[in-house]
Amino acid sequence: LHQSDSNIKAGDEMVVYLVGAGPGDPELITLKAVKALEMADVVIYDRLANEEILKHAPHAKLIYVGKKAGEHYKSQDEINQILLKEAKNNDTVVRLKGGDPFVFGRGGEEVLALKEENISIEMIPGVTSAIGVPTTIGLPVTHRAVATSFTVVTGHEDPTKKEKQVKWDYTADTVVVLMGIGQIEENTREMMKYRDPETPACVIESGTMPEERIVMGTLGDIAKKDIKSPALLVVGNVVNVFKEMTSKELFY
Amino acid sequence: LHQSDSNIKAGDEMVVYLVGAGPGDPELITLKAVKALEMADVVIYDRLANEEILKHAPHAKLIYVGKKAGEHYKSQDEINQILLKEAKNNDTVVRLKGGDPFVFGRGGEEVLALKEENISIEMIPGVTSAIGVPTTIGLPVTHRAVATSFTVVTGHEDPTKKEKQVKWDYTADTVVVLMGIGQIEENTREMMKYRDPETPACVIESGTMPEERIVMGTLGDIAKKDIKSPALLVVGNVVNVFKEMTSKELFY
Repeated sequence: LHQSDSNIKAGDEMVVYLVGAGPGDPELITLKAVKALEMADVVIYDRLANEEILKHAPHAKLIYVGKKAGEHYKSQDEINQILLKEAKNNDTVVRLKGGDPFVFGRGGEEVLALKEENISIEMIPGVTSAIGVPTTIGLPVTHRAVATSFTVVTGHEDPTKKEKQVKWDYTADTVVVLMGIGQIEENTREMMKYRDPETPACVIESGTMPEERIVMGTLGDIAKKDIKSPALLVVGNVVNVFKEMTSKELFY
Repeated sequence: LHQSDSNIKAGDEMVVYLVGAGPGDPELITLKAVKALEMADVVIYDRLANEEILKHAPHAKLIYVGKKAGEHYKSQDEINQILLKEAKNNDTVVRLKGGDPFVFGRGGEEVLALKEENISIEMIPGVTSAIGVPTTIGLPVTHRAVATSFTVVTGHEDPTKKEKQVKWDYTADTVVVLMGIGQIEENTREMMKYRDPETPACVIESGTMPEERIVMGTLGDIAKKDIKSPALLVVGNVVNVFKEMTSKELFY
């Protein structure tokens, strides 16, 4: 890993950039990510909220390795093999992931695979949906005297795991659940063992995108509302701060 | 709040952009933030890790409202008054904060003050240090089978608060403590009530900046190491994943 110098170097060695694409809005990508895309010989990308981001790499070979419902998708092992092959045959490979590469992006597994083969890696963080989506609508994950901590958790735990690691007993003031809409009923039921069902809750569908939609409720009733993926759930009293901030009509 | 349309509009109405500047590296700002700075008549900014970001607003009036050790600094009320005054006298005001405006940035209080006066606000999220700094060095805050959740907490709670809200009993797999180096001894002592002192820990000083420095340890011994602010603390088994990833010499 390039730790001492965070500036992008051009051309002097083979390098894989692991890059966060941000939460969806193509303008929420960083200057550094754009620079890496512009230099890329190859871009290996997941399903992105918006493929417009790929316009920054007009000359690169584009390899899609994402998942779409119903279609065959590549396993993490297959993705690692593609990464290794492309890294060995090109000077500059960009591995592009939605949000931040290390927030439920399985970026760590890819780093370990590349490291095994002594391939240089540079990490370029992105705006994670967990924070960027609430911030964009005006929902603060922290707020003076209301929330001094927040927890981010996956709502969709690897189903092959023997023992569940997600326990839902999080004590932080705000909880943000990513990728959990399919399991929102079980997840909120578990959270209610530790948190008042009247705790305000908010779902944001397609955050930062034109089709963005906000659904308000409580921990106890939010699962019963009409919600479509992709969406994230925010639970905590910060949702009341958001209500105080905005008088705009919301979609219930 | 502009919720339905996340694209920046030029000139048709008075608006305050609340903008995240990212963790320090001036290239870790978003395209959208740059666009807002380019349009700004006024930029009201906090202490930033790197003021180079202000070059994107060459024609704007720059108002510094940050805090530096030893100097008189503005209270939140004074900042709100400046914001209101500038918003009323200019078409485009950018309020620029390090990281993300809603991650311990007191952005919520500024939104409430502007909202009272019916001033339009647009939120532009940024890469928070809490995630962007660990990601940049290659430390994943989540990792398959190691961490399915993380908590971000302030290590420097408002000292005027009668009752402490930060309890340190966080059950998430990874804990990231921001702004807590001055109180790292008390904070780690509290965390040890709930977590094994042998839990791996890592401090990153001046993350994403040229003077970045990494200090490795455990929850039990990290407070005894030589650490300077600004820095953040990461506690959890993901620190072992980071050790596995990098064979580069680290600063102990």
